[in-house]
Amino acid sequence: MNDITDDTLAMVDRAAIESAGHRIAADIRRTPLWRVPGWQLGLDVAEVWLKLEQLQVSGSFKARGMFNRMRSLAVPAAGVVIASGGNAGIAVATAAQAMGVPCEVFLPEVSPPAKRAKLAALGARVTVEGALYPQALEASLRRQAQTGALLMHAYDQPEVVVGAGTLGLEIEQDAGLPDRVLVSVGGGGLVAGVAAWIESRCHVDALEPVNAPTLHAARAAGQPVDVAVSGVAADSLGARRIGHIAWAVSQRHIAGVHLLSDEAISRAQQRMWAQWRLAVEPAAALPLAALWEGVVKPAPSEKVCVIVCGANFDPSTLKG
Amino acid sequence: MNDITDDTLAMVDRAAIESAGHRIAADIRRTPLWRVPGWQLGLDVAEVWLKLEQLQVSGSFKARGMFNRMRSLAVPAAGVVIASGGNAGIAVATAAQAMGVPCEVFLPEVSPPAKRAKLAALGARVTVEGALYPQALEASLRRQAQTGALLMHAYDQPEVVVGAGTLGLEIEQDAGLPDRVLVSVGGGGLVAGVAAWIESRCHVDALEPVNAPTLHAARAAGQPVDVAVSGVAADSLGARRIGHIAWAVSQRHIAGVHLLSDEAISRAQQRMWAQWRLAVEPAAALPLAALWEGVVKPAPSEKVCVIVCGANFDPSTLKG
Repeated sequence: MNDITDDTLAMVDRAAIESAGHRIAADIRRTPLWRVPGWQLGLDVAEVWLKLEQLQVSGSFKARGMFNRMRSLAVPAAGVVIASGGNAGIAVATAAQAMGVPCEVFLPEVSPPAKRAKLAALGARVTVEGALYPQALEASLRRQAQTGALLMHAYDQPEVVVGAGTLGLEIEQDAGLPDRVLVSVGGGGLVAGVAAWIESRCHVDALEPVNAPTLHAARAAGQPVDVAVSGVAADSLGARRIGHIAWAVSQRHIAGVHLLSDEAISRAQQRMWAQWRLAVEPAAALPLAALWEGVVKPAPSEKVCVIVCGANFDPSTLKG
Repeated sequence: MNDITDDTLAMVDRAAIESAGHRIAADIRRTPLWRVPGWQLGLDVAEVWLKLEQLQVSGSFKARGMFNRMRSLAVPAAGVVIASGGNAGIAVATAAQAMGVPCEVFLPEVSPPAKRAKLAALGARVTVEGALYPQALEASLRRQAQTGALLMHAYDQPEVVVGAGTLGLEIEQDAGLPDRVLVSVGGGGLVAGVAAWIESRCHVDALEPVNAPTLHAARAAGQPVDVAVSGVAADSLGARRIGHIAWAVSQRHIAGVHLLSDEAISRAQQRMWAQWRLAVEPAAALPLAALWEGVVKPAPSEKVCVIVCGANFDPSTLKG
């Protein structure tokens, strides 16, 4: 599934993203782009543009990529299959339910019952197999070989990356290009899609938890490598390795890669609720964490876009 | 404080609202107006415009009115005083902190310690006096007479209503007039401000909990009367009587008054989180509850604006 060729990479470009925008227009929500003067956020920048993508169908940006892949390719009678207990699984189950096709989600035994119940409520067939995620993934690949179902990957398929890129397209359509876009990175599907749309016409900063530094580690090693994953955002950003597509796009179109501590992420998540009434998951707090902590320091004249990427979390963790 | 004269009412008009918009522009946030195709919300209407006012400074629309009164009148050295444990108190304390003036909030003994702590954290002097709200109100009036502080009312002062009206102004500036606006009603400050801006150029529907029917009861009696107050939205919409200003404006400019059960309100609140990731207090769920329950039935061609008025609540009450 990670056999990425030059042909695959050639599929990830602005023309493809523009087509995807039309393809999924009726499936997804055009989420608000909220332009706020920087000082209102306590920041010395001209404007902050909050792309409120946590309000997207399925509760995260993942719906864009999953709908795009399922609308681009012929979904066989066997439906779709994925190994994911996180936002990708929820997005595939949501898309399958909307399109009326079967969906099977593989989860390992460590997955919480609440997640299984949520996927089942979306109409997915939930199969628990293997102790940990890699075993569930193996099981999903075996099932796919048996049934011929369309295999969905959380971030490393061109249609998935291109679908995520429609987020960049929407931002530009709504307000033009900002000076900088800040994006959270797990497997890199979102940042790759957005960077492929932007094509270096403004800065793209990639933000990772210290405890899940896939792109940072790949840059240090000169190629994608496995990393240990833990921490408050592991649920969404806990890919073990940057995607091949994201790796390729990032070398051309991503300026900075920055790391954030769990404490900084949690502080920003709580502040977003306490001061802004934005209820978001930890992964969605990295961009504002980077600004509030001074990890990314834009010039005072800049318009900075932060992508608020998801809200699939337990809101009882919010205080105040 | 409720000695409303014709002169007072004459202060609540579109010119005053336009002035207020300029006066408080640097104090408040211009909250997003999110236009969504009706079918995406499961509704047979052309468009729903969600005015995401729960993202306002202080977590509710109340900041508009409080800033407007405090910027319109000279705040004496003694500062401001209010009796409120709800959104009005939070908004006054927030405005006083921003403006650097003293603030005293009176609460009755029944008020939860969490609310007192929140107000204290905003820099307010919190005074607990009397068993119930009416006694706290009496105490606040006595204090005002002693100190000469500026008395703030949660909804029945012209500057407060006019400030709330800037919400209507913003909607029209951003998208023109819809065919219908749906507004939650407690004491009526918000609906009066919005209706005074709209001036019957489109429908305004007032929505009340069955368990806090101030405007409904006033219409039945031909004048404002006390009502019994309880239920899931009592915290925000639990005024005992419609304001005099709201009563006067409503007779000219509010078409329908509709009641919603606690169950309908809670269902809508949960659905707004489960399907839309909008974390809002019960009071903010009445407009969509009215549409989802069929209590208000717009024509299929209509563009309907719903005001999502606040999010000061305990998010651990959300499920899914």
